Amino acid sequence: MKIRHPYLLFLGDAADQLAAKTANGVNVWRPDWCMGQFRLKGCKADLGIPDMNIAQAAKAGVKTVLVGVANRGGIIPADWEKHLVKACELGMDIASGLHNRLTSLPKLVAAAKANGRKLFDVRHPDRDFDVGTGLKRKGKRLLTVGTDCSVGKMFTSLALEKEMRRRKMKADFRATGQTGIFIAGSGISIDAVISDFVSGAVEYLAPDNDADHWDLIEGQGSLFHASYAGVTLGLIHGSQPDALVVCHEHGRSHMRGLPHYKHPSLEDCIARNVEAAKLTNPRAKCVGIALNTQRVSEKEAIKLLKKTEDKLGLPAVDPLRTGVDAIADTLR
Amino acid sequence: MKIRHPYLLFLGDAADQLAAKTANGVNVWRPDWCMGQFRLKGCKADLGIPDMNIAQAAKAGVKTVLVGVANRGGIIPADWEKHLVKACELGMDIASGLHNRLTSLPKLVAAAKANGRKLFDVRHPDRDFDVGTGLKRKGKRLLTVGTDCSVGKMFTSLALEKEMRRRKMKADFRATGQTGIFIAGSGISIDAVISDFVSGAVEYLAPDNDADHWDLIEGQGSLFHASYAGVTLGLIHGSQPDALVVCHEHGRSHMRGLPHYKHPSLEDCIARNVEAAKLTNPRAKCVGIALNTQRVSEKEAIKLLKKTEDKLGLPAVDPLRTGVDAIADTLR
Repeated sequence: MKIRHPYLLFLGDAADQLAAKTANGVNVWRPDWCMGQFRLKGCKADLGIPDMNIAQAAKAGVKTVLVGVANRGGIIPADWEKHLVKACELGMDIASGLHNRLTSLPKLVAAAKANGRKLFDVRHPDRDFDVGTGLKRKGKRLLTVGTDCSVGKMFTSLALEKEMRRRKMKADFRATGQTGIFIAGSGISIDAVISDFVSGAVEYLAPDNDADHWDLIEGQGSLFHASYAGVTLGLIHGSQPDALVVCHEHGRSHMRGLPHYKHPSLEDCIARNVEAAKLTNPRAKCVGIALNTQRVSEKEAIKLLKKTEDKLGLPAVDPLRTGVDAIADTLR
Repeated sequence: MKIRHPYLLFLGDAADQLAAKTANGVNVWRPDWCMGQFRLKGCKADLGIPDMNIAQAAKAGVKTVLVGVANRGGIIPADWEKHLVKACELGMDIASGLHNRLTSLPKLVAAAKANGRKLFDVRHPDRDFDVGTGLKRKGKRLLTVGTDCSVGKMFTSLALEKEMRRRKMKADFRATGQTGIFIAGSGISIDAVISDFVSGAVEYLAPDNDADHWDLIEGQGSLFHASYAGVTLGLIHGSQPDALVVCHEHGRSHMRGLPHYKHPSLEDCIARNVEAAKLTNPRAKCVGIALNTQRVSEKEAIKLLKKTEDKLGLPAVDPLRTGVDAIADTLR
């Protein structure tokens, strides 16, 4: 799976700005790849980039149309399909982050085939994987883990990639979820892999590399999330991380989607993730904390980060507010 | 998925007795359900039960033909298919534990449809599952876990079912692997479930029940196995086990399939499994150890079990040699 850019971000008739969260993430992290947005009648989202229809996008040199929007009712409507068909006819590939597959639409499949175009359903792995071997690989790996889902693991990994590349370090973000895959142009939706092959899929995603190269692997779920911890553990073991960054959103009241479950302390979260990681990399250690402090003021955030550093003896950053320099420093 | 018995055990041209391991397990645990074996020319396995062809099996009242044999080259040969087609024509269902699906054989699919028969590919879940909720369920649950794969988790679970039923306790074995599914007549091949849904699948497998009812859930893999630990963790969280039994094979030199990985100590294995289980059931505890002592003499085995009990302060049994009474005692 290698998605070509530049992209046209297809927003359809997104009900609100949140429905275009994925497209927004791609535009934030890869502004140079996003030539425009295509909005249908009734679309309530706006990414603030040029509006383009399919014909204009083809003319502008777009290589792939990204369907990066939560659709209504879970199906791809017929009036979306006709635009996607046209995109194929004009030489563009289509990539979708929806559960429903592009490849389940007969007209679109026919159009892609007739025009030699590719359809990417990034939520669904497009190949089989072997079971993990646990064999040590060359190069270095960092994995973001967390106290919960949706606490900033992707954001932190991408911020580290940006900062490390700025410092001329060798670093590649490795995507494990749909938004990340659009941003990287490749990757594996790890939670859609058959459970037996999760660690093997991660070994495939982050293979042997230069001794001074860092794979920055996007974490998923949490060892403390009753629904998804198994995915997280397979991801940890397959990553064989040299370094872990623990992510947390300050001020959440309970585990995401599970009102009856509380968050672990940062201490417990560090301990359990390092313990798990040591199975496949005995030198694994936690190198920093990434706090999402959006619920408090700048001033409170700075105090909170300082308090966290003092308590844990580790650099604590808010990637959005302070950047990730302090963590990048430790990876030299 | 509810597989009807009695069974005819289809052994094909099994290369040796080991290739018929699954069929053998079914025959050992459900002798009353196994009316006969059907062996083709060149078959080197023998379960010591009556030989029957398809027509004889139909006449004898067989409801399902079990393809419970590791086949050569991974495909279902044409000369097997013709017998399976005939079974459908004579009113029998087919259940297979092979990776290759019965439902990928057009002639067999047609015969099943024409005759209103069912094809069960037990290695592949036949339905979707929700993500786990982590909500407490009624009834009690025991999960077998282990230091490694293939150390006796299914055997121990089945031995407990047998002993508890003998004592008139309410107990049901819940199968999570192919052999177990044939033995239970239903279940879920948990390692073939999409990783996001593993704990949810287990919640489905072992739902609310009577307060004094025990689900005896077949464990898979090990938290210490670099290839499969994620499957194991999802299974633990979905099981919400009140009781854990730790299984181990004495005398193994390394983790199965991973010569570069050593086994954990029983102490570490207990600690990590209980720690993991407490996320979804804070009252989880280890109630006993099941040692597979096949590599040593009866006398040495008894000494080893005694030593293990003294060291850990828990009942230690070899289900095959001593039975599981000592563990069943603790579940009253």
